[in-house]
Amino acid sequence: MDATEDNLPAGFRFAGVTCGIKASGKSDLSLIVTDHPVTAAGVYTKNQIVAAPVTLCRSRTPTNKLRAVVTNSGNANACTGDQGMADARSMCDEVAKRIGCDPEAVLVMSTGVIGRPLPMEKITAGIDMASKELASDPPAFVRAAEAIRTTDAERKTVTRAIQIGQRTIKFAAMAKGAGMIAPNMATMLAVMMTDAPLSAESIKDVLTEAADCSFNRVSVDGHTSTNDSLLLLASGQGDPLVGDELLQFQSHINEVAIALAKQLVEDGEGAVHTMWIQVRGAANTDAAATIAKTIAASPLVKTAITGGDPNWGRIVSAAGYSDAKIEPTKTSLKICGEEIYRGGTPIPFDAKSLSAKMRANKEVPIELTVGEGAGAADYWSSDLTCDYVRFNSEYTT
Amino acid sequence: MDATEDNLPAGFRFAGVTCGIKASGKSDLSLIVTDHPVTAAGVYTKNQIVAAPVTLCRSRTPTNKLRAVVTNSGNANACTGDQGMADARSMCDEVAKRIGCDPEAVLVMSTGVIGRPLPMEKITAGIDMASKELASDPPAFVRAAEAIRTTDAERKTVTRAIQIGQRTIKFAAMAKGAGMIAPNMATMLAVMMTDAPLSAESIKDVLTEAADCSFNRVSVDGHTSTNDSLLLLASGQGDPLVGDELLQFQSHINEVAIALAKQLVEDGEGAVHTMWIQVRGAANTDAAATIAKTIAASPLVKTAITGGDPNWGRIVSAAGYSDAKIEPTKTSLKICGEEIYRGGTPIPFDAKSLSAKMRANKEVPIELTVGEGAGAADYWSSDLTCDYVRFNSEYTT
Repeated sequence: MDATEDNLPAGFRFAGVTCGIKASGKSDLSLIVTDHPVTAAGVYTKNQIVAAPVTLCRSRTPTNKLRAVVTNSGNANACTGDQGMADARSMCDEVAKRIGCDPEAVLVMSTGVIGRPLPMEKITAGIDMASKELASDPPAFVRAAEAIRTTDAERKTVTRAIQIGQRTIKFAAMAKGAGMIAPNMATMLAVMMTDAPLSAESIKDVLTEAADCSFNRVSVDGHTSTNDSLLLLASGQGDPLVGDELLQFQSHINEVAIALAKQLVEDGEGAVHTMWIQVRGAANTDAAATIAKTIAASPLVKTAITGGDPNWGRIVSAAGYSDAKIEPTKTSLKICGEEIYRGGTPIPFDAKSLSAKMRANKEVPIELTVGEGAGAADYWSSDLTCDYVRFNSEYTT
Repeated sequence: MDATEDNLPAGFRFAGVTCGIKASGKSDLSLIVTDHPVTAAGVYTKNQIVAAPVTLCRSRTPTNKLRAVVTNSGNANACTGDQGMADARSMCDEVAKRIGCDPEAVLVMSTGVIGRPLPMEKITAGIDMASKELASDPPAFVRAAEAIRTTDAERKTVTRAIQIGQRTIKFAAMAKGAGMIAPNMATMLAVMMTDAPLSAESIKDVLTEAADCSFNRVSVDGHTSTNDSLLLLASGQGDPLVGDELLQFQSHINEVAIALAKQLVEDGEGAVHTMWIQVRGAANTDAAATIAKTIAASPLVKTAITGGDPNWGRIVSAAGYSDAKIEPTKTSLKICGEEIYRGGTPIPFDAKSLSAKMRANKEVPIELTVGEGAGAADYWSSDLTCDYVRFNSEYTT
């Protein structure tokens, strides 16, 4: 998933440095700077407990004058009160000073332990260092993506070049997150960048739709952190995309977002298998997503996937207790493409061979039809293993 | 928890027999017969996929002419279509024939594997056997309670005698359930019996209130089965309880229901510790219950309890993503009586000694205040261990 020179969008420079926030000595400060003011939007955690950087970003997006995003890992700046707000602001101020822009044009994200004040001296030094190392080449992009990791086993990036009419449009995106890890409440952070021209009016809608079909459709343990943030920066100049071009762009950015979001699930704590839950026939998209989410969050479904068990009872009954309506006599289920439940009744199948198929697939497709409606939704989730339990029950506070 | 002769309510006879539904050879058919018609009510699963016996019971309760409850374990009679309905009816008919009553006066419950037809020949023979062994003594009550078990490690019964004014009122209750186990979708079943006189008008309300503060406030894995049923039978004759006496009765039956429901959590699959989640200061009872349920279902909170980790971040952030409103700056938390988070800010505490306290307690009290409202709710949940994962990921379909 490494970025290549060919498909990094123009207009962005990157840096990732080590400034000593993490005891591990791994890189912990990431900086993205744009060559000129760009349009930007964000979608943020729905948790009622909100970290200071999220509050600040919310107040500064959407915007058409964004110049930089600074992110630290190792400390989430959450549950830190007034000092936390002052520190988040100060991080933006320090960046603004060095690149010569309005502090309001800078966004900030944080991830790591909560309830502790940021080590501002280290962070300021890190910002200084990063601002001197900015570069637009792929290694710089990778360094920026590395510096936002916490417990992630893998770096998460997506780069892509697509064609819309005569235009070539590029994407580069990075994310971090592998479940909520105490005391980190580890957080999902992601930045998507493109050189497409987007208006300040449309960028929020574009991002919201992309988030709804990707980051809002993945689950490791169903725990929404206090820091979750997803940003979209669009550096393209000239006439913004409209009409059919904008629609085409939307479908491409949705795919980029899904590719990035799926990396979170694949790297889920302790995950061995993932599920691709496809709900069809619901009353509408929301209903389909509600059903899919309920299945995705069921410990019994998750452990069935862990064990390679084609357990239709757990899946169908999870759909049955979701808050969305299903039609029991029109409910059918396929696992790995094989139909094992049709119209409300189990149908005979070779459990041994289907189990072998499930075990052989890293991603197990689950197709559930719940009626004859037009509502459809896809959802991705990790399984539940002893490693997840071990990882999260080790004493950490 | 064994019943003694002193506190079994009058008017009930019991039997528990082995008729060969379970391959294990353990007892699998339970019969409760009343000496005369009694009032009865039921509350049932909210799952949209509903087993045949639940459909039948729903249509026959509340009633003031109940004569018997027959329960089989080893087969849930769920997802069995028209044959399932016919079989459920037939079980009641067989009981009615033998005790001499209207088939409508008989209720039926089933638990065990789903999607397979009931072995009706065995069951009919079992009903015949049970109807000849009915007795009102404690060993018979215990046999009836044994015969409804599936994967329960422990038998679950509560017996109690209480005083209301000059009256002595007795309770005897039995339950089964330890989580949803595939392919069993193992189900919670419970029957509470009392010799209090209750009117057919009040018994449904009494049971609903008792269920709301007990069985609806416990969680092992959050999976609502297709068969969950809770029945209340009241054999008392003469003037029904009203006014203050009914209120007193309500508070006692709530306690009986809570004592029984807590046994489900304590016997939760793989459970080592349980949590007693006490939410206070919410807008109303429903809001408090929603917050408590969200905490109870969080795999991160569950694994923190497994690990004896006083992880306030996981608990507070779970409350924050519940569907009910919290006031972050008025949120405080105690674990094992020790305050570690106050008014939205963590406060220093000795993590090592608090962790030792958590490990030493079989039941870990978690007191969360989320504002200044009057809404309060208690909730009980098991922790999440590797044994749970192992138990549920072993190949079983």
